[in-house]
Amino acid sequence: MSILVVGSVAFDTIRTPFGQATEVLGGSATYFSAAASFFGDVRLVAVVGEDFPEDHLGFLRERKVDLRGLQRVPGRTFRWVGEYGFDLNEARTLDTQLNVFADFAPKIPEEYRDSEVVFLANIDPDLQREVLRQVRRPAFVAADTMNYWIARKPDSLRQTLGLVDTLVINDAETRQLAGEANLVQAARKILGWGPRGLVIKRGEYGALMFNDGDWFAAPALPLEAIQDPTGAGDCFAGGFIGYLANTMNFGDASVRKAMIMGSVMASFNVEAFSLDRLRALTSGEIQARFRAFKRLAHFEDL
Amino acid sequence: MSILVVGSVAFDTIRTPFGQATEVLGGSATYFSAAASFFGDVRLVAVVGEDFPEDHLGFLRERKVDLRGLQRVPGRTFRWVGEYGFDLNEARTLDTQLNVFADFAPKIPEEYRDSEVVFLANIDPDLQREVLRQVRRPAFVAADTMNYWIARKPDSLRQTLGLVDTLVINDAETRQLAGEANLVQAARKILGWGPRGLVIKRGEYGALMFNDGDWFAAPALPLEAIQDPTGAGDCFAGGFIGYLANTMNFGDASVRKAMIMGSVMASFNVEAFSLDRLRALTSGEIQARFRAFKRLAHFEDL
Repeated sequence: MSILVVGSVAFDTIRTPFGQATEVLGGSATYFSAAASFFGDVRLVAVVGEDFPEDHLGFLRERKVDLRGLQRVPGRTFRWVGEYGFDLNEARTLDTQLNVFADFAPKIPEEYRDSEVVFLANIDPDLQREVLRQVRRPAFVAADTMNYWIARKPDSLRQTLGLVDTLVINDAETRQLAGEANLVQAARKILGWGPRGLVIKRGEYGALMFNDGDWFAAPALPLEAIQDPTGAGDCFAGGFIGYLANTMNFGDASVRKAMIMGSVMASFNVEAFSLDRLRALTSGEIQARFRAFKRLAHFEDL
Repeated sequence: MSILVVGSVAFDTIRTPFGQATEVLGGSATYFSAAASFFGDVRLVAVVGEDFPEDHLGFLRERKVDLRGLQRVPGRTFRWVGEYGFDLNEARTLDTQLNVFADFAPKIPEEYRDSEVVFLANIDPDLQREVLRQVRRPAFVAADTMNYWIARKPDSLRQTLGLVDTLVINDAETRQLAGEANLVQAARKILGWGPRGLVIKRGEYGALMFNDGDWFAAPALPLEAIQDPTGAGDCFAGGFIGYLANTMNFGDASVRKAMIMGSVMASFNVEAFSLDRLRALTSGEIQARFRAFKRLAHFEDL
């Protein structure tokens, strides 16, 4: 039931057609932790600079996220500036300042090493393996990656893929990683490199999972009140992996429900900027939205 | 159980990354009829020119489609030339020769006027209403349209919408018709103009239905062997409306299954050029693929 996440904590500056936010709390490990914290004990490993306010992660502390693995080092915190047009599926990056994240060397605290479930958020695949070398026999390992690593470190990424149970990426990354336009062929190729499962995030079109030779399609809830899609993919991963850690059941029926829980958490997150929607979220709302997904996707046999 | 379709019969010339076909059988009424013929008695109204070979619709005759409403007039048959890139969701039109279709004035034969279900394929909205004036109290009317009519005849299209039960269009058309980027807001606006149901086709991402205040998301089957997406939307409509005509049940559970049946027929059609996959299709295959969709979309309650 303990979940280790290694990724980024950042300041995001975001513009969408519905508003803007300046230097708000962001980063893959932040979004993942907030979402996963509704399902299990989350342990975070990331790095921030001296400019990071002591109380800025107060919300994660309230949610009982273990922050002993958050390193504070000299320099400035990672900053990302991006904007979205009306097609909210695609962010345009206006500026990336890696700052202290450029030299991030994840150090897993001794008390985190027995974590049962591990999520390697989008960091250098060399570092992803470095994390796995420091943990003891997790029951389940999932990883994310991005176009940058696919293009620059394909061999390292392939080595990491040989060590993870499930890869969680978007559809463009799936095609790029496999070098195949057809998603079925791309999935088959990637699974040939090691992972048992592949989760393909498709934004407003939902998510697909290829697992043990079987496809599952999770719909996305049609939403009226989308404010900011930033972090949706990491909240999806947080709900997906959080649910699996909560049940410790990695069988077919359980991973299908986990996919829906990922979709549920992503659907909440996009309703406000930064982590604001998750700050106000209740378990009752999560359960009600799971039922809404069931209603959305259900049809009877012939 | 009788289904009237009014639309086009055409010669298509198509290039996709997987092959090409020259002056093959196409047209909205053709694809719709072939798909719907697996579920009910289809009656076709369309127009062809003198150059249309007498036996070119032999496959529709074999499938017992009633062709008494097919008008043959002096001139050349409608021709469309298009191509697809690796993004098979979008056709690029290279040439359109309306020919005899430009002066199409649908005349519903007396023996078609009692049709219980009517599909108004993508034709001038003035003509769509002209068709409805000629039929007697159908139980269910569905219509398609396209960007051309949305831009050029918005008022006429609004009048037609006041007379149909369900509008079947794609997501770009939904946004254009409503003038709204958000799909939920767009759907609500369109439904305010009359239809009880709105079906939004999204190609490889499946289809959404908004019906009686409720959303339903039909997935698309991830397909390895896509040859040609031409006609997928009309085959979807053929499966959707064919299933409804077969059951004459327009309640929620039935329209959800009809959406899946539409997806089933579209998924077969894209596996070959023109109508070639439907020519070889069996009821057993249709039922097996419906079960594959069920497997694709199913998850349990929490």
